Amino acid sequence: MTIRFNVRALVLALTLGCAGALHAQTNEPVSPIPYPAAGDPAKIELGKKLFFDPRLSKSGFISCNSCHNLSTGGSDNLATSIGDKWQQGPINSPTVLNSSLNMAQFWDGRAGDLREQAGGPIANPMEMAFTHELAIALLASIPDYVDEFKQVYGTPEITIGEVTDAIAAFEEVLVTPDAPFDLWLKGDQTALSDQALAGYQLFKTSGCVACHNGPNLGGRSFQKMGLIEPYQTDNPAQGRSAVTGQDADRFSFKVPTLRNVELTYPYFHDGAVNTLTEAVDIMGRLQLGRHYSAEENAQIVAFLKSLTGKQPEIVLPILPPSSDETPRPTPFGP
Amino acid sequence: MTIRFNVRALVLALTLGCAGALHAQTNEPVSPIPYPAAGDPAKIELGKKLFFDPRLSKSGFISCNSCHNLSTGGSDNLATSIGDKWQQGPINSPTVLNSSLNMAQFWDGRAGDLREQAGGPIANPMEMAFTHELAIALLASIPDYVDEFKQVYGTPEITIGEVTDAIAAFEEVLVTPDAPFDLWLKGDQTALSDQALAGYQLFKTSGCVACHNGPNLGGRSFQKMGLIEPYQTDNPAQGRSAVTGQDADRFSFKVPTLRNVELTYPYFHDGAVNTLTEAVDIMGRLQLGRHYSAEENAQIVAFLKSLTGKQPEIVLPILPPSSDETPRPTPFGP
Repeated sequence: MTIRFNVRALVLALTLGCAGALHAQTNEPVSPIPYPAAGDPAKIELGKKLFFDPRLSKSGFISCNSCHNLSTGGSDNLATSIGDKWQQGPINSPTVLNSSLNMAQFWDGRAGDLREQAGGPIANPMEMAFTHELAIALLASIPDYVDEFKQVYGTPEITIGEVTDAIAAFEEVLVTPDAPFDLWLKGDQTALSDQALAGYQLFKTSGCVACHNGPNLGGRSFQKMGLIEPYQTDNPAQGRSAVTGQDADRFSFKVPTLRNVELTYPYFHDGAVNTLTEAVDIMGRLQLGRHYSAEENAQIVAFLKSLTGKQPEIVLPILPPSSDETPRPTPFGP
Repeated sequence: MTIRFNVRALVLALTLGCAGALHAQTNEPVSPIPYPAAGDPAKIELGKKLFFDPRLSKSGFISCNSCHNLSTGGSDNLATSIGDKWQQGPINSPTVLNSSLNMAQFWDGRAGDLREQAGGPIANPMEMAFTHELAIALLASIPDYVDEFKQVYGTPEITIGEVTDAIAAFEEVLVTPDAPFDLWLKGDQTALSDQALAGYQLFKTSGCVACHNGPNLGGRSFQKMGLIEPYQTDNPAQGRSAVTGQDADRFSFKVPTLRNVELTYPYFHDGAVNTLTEAVDIMGRLQLGRHYSAEENAQIVAFLKSLTGKQPEIVLPILPPSSDETPRPTPFGP
């Protein structure tokens, strides 16, 4: 038996040798999305429940997944999001997918990490319109949540730090490895079409990659929107200057990831642009002073579509029911 | 080998014999939830996508799952639902779980089956606020949907009949077998606590079971809400008379299922009651003229909680992206 298996392994090695071993692309400004770390399964499961739980909103209707919908690229595919009482959000919801690879969170980077970010929408009166105190009181009234928090954090008391820590732990596994482009980076020469490969070359040579680089093709710097020509928008967002107070940072935004960009329309911080074709055209002109031909544009779009990775397989959580003591949502109240 | 397995089977049979074989409860007015039929996997998968797709609403924000949330017992746990532009719905959203076992759909039974029901909310201006024509045009603009419909229905043209047929096929597998009470019905004497068993006896002897019977403990008849005493509510719903035009049917509603009732708070057609304790008390007084003691009430509540079945395990669908030609949602437009 041992001999037979050794012979098989030898045959396999020879076959692979003949077909050509995989030679990874080196010295590229983009690297593959790493597989998620194992993490703490109980914490991730708790974070998943919280991510999907609409009771963290005043209305009992809006959960993290409402605007970062894992069925639609971790975004809501709306120009700007819908918040409590149908309020129109000020800015386009960034995708939650691969967001752990960003240097900071929100378009203006006002949150340093996912933990800090996760507390924002819950208490934002335009979004989930709850408070951290009400969220904690609500969770503490649900026996199964109390048990789960105790199992994960070892204390009977639930804190907002634990809530955001668990949500962040779940979000950290929301990565999308093995996009066709990543398979190509890892050495699979058949993973990209000639058109997409030409698009990638153009993406590099014409300068897109100066900002959209690293594993997330973005998320590593703040850049001014409208470098060469100003960007025309009705959206009042000022970008990074809202955080730094520096006038020089006006209209500077965190460079968005291009991972799964085929799924995360509409584009730009104001969500004003519906198609990749239009987005590439605008980016070329405004950021690079370059007018891409129709053929060049199509090549870059083909490359961008090769960035759609394997979406996380999420089993919908079954949320623990409220108890008789749980405060009820007030979607229509003051 | 054959002999060895036969010996094992014999040992197993003897062991079961010693432990006492399962003797199913017979002649009970409630029967176990049947396991779902296999169905057509491709059609069910397509229906699942449609069920979760918010693009079937005008806003691009509301899907079937918004009000029939499979994380929360197939309901939204709101008194009345939130529709397009945060409109307040007229009535409590019934659970989608086990809804295929009902004789008709909606509280007033105006839809004969799930196919007929599924078309309602899409075109209801207070709910998803779309039209069937717009929904079809939208789906037809998404190449992956066109392929899936063609695979399932064999034609390149998408129709609203196919859309509702696929959604209904998905809903038909949303059943919740193996609740503790069902295990008891099947003969597992240890599945129910003494309290729950006493609650079931009281449920039968005091008359609840006259309306809440069959596999779904409801869904088989229309009954007047407030038989002995009138039910006080601000909700203007008239119930069955809206369908029949008969004054005798005023305030007559489809008897709701009690399956998973622990998860589907708040209760009654107006969603005015938050706890099972209160619901049992009101039902006893208004429908049966009976004032349950605190102990009796707790017994019935324990029985009702034994009706929570195995929730369907749903892998969140990944929705096919819109194309450049797909009409965009208008959440804030006229």
